[in-house]
Amino acid sequence: MSKLIKEFNNYRTKMNSRISETANTNMKRFLALDNTTYADGALNTKTKEMLGLVASMVLRCDDCIKYHLGKCHEAGVNTEEMNEIFMIANLVGGSIVIPHYRRAVEYWDELNEVADK
Amino acid sequence: MSKLIKEFNNYRTKMNSRISETANTNMKRFLALDNTTYADGALNTKTKEMLGLVASMVLRCDDCIKYHLGKCHEAGVNTEEMNEIFMIANLVGGSIVIPHYRRAVEYWDELNEVADK
Amino acid sequence: MSKLIKEFNNYRTKMNSRISETANTNMKRFLALDNTTYADGALNTKTKEMLGLVASMVLRCDDCIKYHLGKCHEAGVNTEEMNEIFMIANLVGGSIVIPHYRRAVEYWDELNEVADK
Amino acid sequence: MSKLIKEFNNYRTKMNSRISETANTNMKRFLALDNTTYADGALNTKTKEMLGLVASMVLRCDDCIKYHLGKCHEAGVNTEEMNEIFMIANLVGGSIVIPHYRRAVEYWDELNEVADK
Amino acid sequence: MSKLIKEFNNYRTKMNSRISETANTNMKRFLALDNTTYADGALNTKTKEMLGLVASMVLRCDDCIKYHLGKCHEAGVNTEEMNEIFMIANLVGGSIVIPHYRRAVEYWDELNEVADK
Amino acid sequence: MSKLIKEFNNYRTKMNSRISETANTNMKRFLALDNTTYADGALNTKTKEMLGLVASMVLRCDDCIKYHLGKCHEAGVNTEEMNEIFMIANLVGGSIVIPHYRRAVEYWDELNEVADK
Repeated sequence: MSKLIKEFNNYRTKMNSRISETANTNMKRFLALDNTTYADGALNTKTKEMLGLVASMVLRCDDCIKYHLGKCHEAGVNTEEMNEIFMIANLVGGSIVIPHYRRAVEYWDELNEVADK
Repeated sequence: MSKLIKEFNNYRTKMNSRISETANTNMKRFLALDNTTYADGALNTKTKEMLGLVASMVLRCDDCIKYHLGKCHEAGVNTEEMNEIFMIANLVGGSIVIPHYRRAVEYWDELNEVADK
Repeated sequence: MSKLIKEFNNYRTKMNSRISETANTNMKRFLALDNTTYADGALNTKTKEMLGLVASMVLRCDDCIKYHLGKCHEAGVNTEEMNEIFMIANLVGGSIVIPHYRRAVEYWDELNEVADK
Repeated sequence: MSKLIKEFNNYRTKMNSRISETANTNMKRFLALDNTTYADGALNTKTKEMLGLVASMVLRCDDCIKYHLGKCHEAGVNTEEMNEIFMIANLVGGSIVIPHYRRAVEYWDELNEVADK
Repeated sequence: MSKLIKEFNNYRTKMNSRISETANTNMKRFLALDNTTYADGALNTKTKEMLGLVASMVLRCDDCIKYHLGKCHEAGVNTEEMNEIFMIANLVGGSIVIPHYRRAVEYWDELNEVADK
Repeated sequence: MSKLIKEFNNYRTKMNSRISETANTNMKRFLALDNTTYADGALNTKTKEMLGLVASMVLRCDDCIKYHLGKCHEAGVNTEEMNEIFMIANLVGGSIVIPHYRRAVEYWDELNEVADK
């Protein structure tokens, strides 16, 4: 049921832990920025996570897409809103985004199934 | 004063007019989608234009950035919000985005100067 | 034997079916354009599918490459022609395309094996 | 009248000449491949130049686009065919290609004006 | 233990062998350039492999990253140096590189484990 | 004589000054990382600037290329070494890099002319 979510989270957690052991100071600062940038500010977290998602989709990074889909789900983005983000990503990024869109729909469905339980 | 805005708009208007004469049916449908996609829906136009902007920045298309900066300005995005979009674009897209960020700041300043008159 | 082809087609069919349930109107229009664009016109389908393939290779999207390899095969592109498309893709896109080229050769071989039966 | 064509050709010729003085052996081999790859073979030059053009458009390189537009013109691609290439490039590469499409239409018009004289 | 290394090398060797049977003359010349370019010259192989790695990381090609990680390891790049390459890749390419960085750290660890035996 | 260098530096200085007035805290941290990352460490500045240059070339950012060409020049990279960096960038990034390579050669020549005075 939540197979994709578990696989993604497990690998990400394992490697983030390894990275915290090995990364140099600048890399740690970079990763810290990656956290604080999406915090509530002039724009709220929901909007920022949508921005992170659309950027990840047009750059076609499946792991980044999964991460921001999870965060958008937590932030309360609904499916109708998500479909509009998907449309902007496909329009701006082109049909080359479609395979990533398919995988995003599959992951989004899983996020919603888990939440329905 | 609004030199960049005028140059961008004049060329864009001239070529869009030429394109409307020459484009085939599918191309016209594609361009129509490019308009309707940013209309108010589940997400409002302001949010959608911010999504269009961040996508344009990480894909590093100066003309697309100028276009969405203009639309964000019309939709009421303020400078503090814009700075948070800029940060997400630079973070996700990397330091390779910085030269586009410089030009975006210059264009955003012009949009604000014109509005102040 | 045709393991790669089956896996690709099965997942694509499943998700396209799901997308037809969930996508909004603009997304459906975009997907419709993706079909009609490759139909015979001033350029025939064979040429258009070769254009779709080379674009997919330089943008390095494995699923898009598989899709257009299948369509090129149906349209009668032969292996000598395909090798010239591969060369243009590697030349324009660079050695970063080589891993995608390897997978494309494997998939093309499968398409030809199935056809030989 | 043919301002864009002249500017593009003059700069390209000047720098190619400088490169022929400075490039190392491998670079010269790479540039030689860039010439021979588009020669008639299993696919004719016209088809190959169309492939080079669509690859250049989705990768959004204006100079590469101009170069292949010139070569497509020489090879006898007509405007109806060109519009179908433009459509595939915009569809696959997305709306981010539109500004390059505008400049391509402008350059294509110039190529046709010169030819009409 | 060295599962990732074996999988990568086996598939690469198998397909390179197939490519040597099928590729046309220009493609073989291109692949030959891919070998000779990293040989000792004005810059030594170690520096060139680091250049190949950072280019592969910002272009986000996992197979290319694995290949150059292996070559960097052979050329004597140590972990402290590797972390500085990782930082430049993430900085220039942006947070979109992070998932590739995770996989690179995993592969680099495997290369070091094998070497320690 | 050093027209390109002056234009690039003047605009960059002007906009960096404007950015220091307007950027938010995270953006300033990001820009600070962009400075410290290229400092001498396990790898020396010369090597790091070559890494920054090749990354900029395959991502095809002319301003980033100019910046790192200047820094490579300061760090003592000679023309024979530079030609090998150019070759790796063109090989990995493909012929789409060639127009950026032309402009890089022009800028490199200017850097050397200024230094010769």
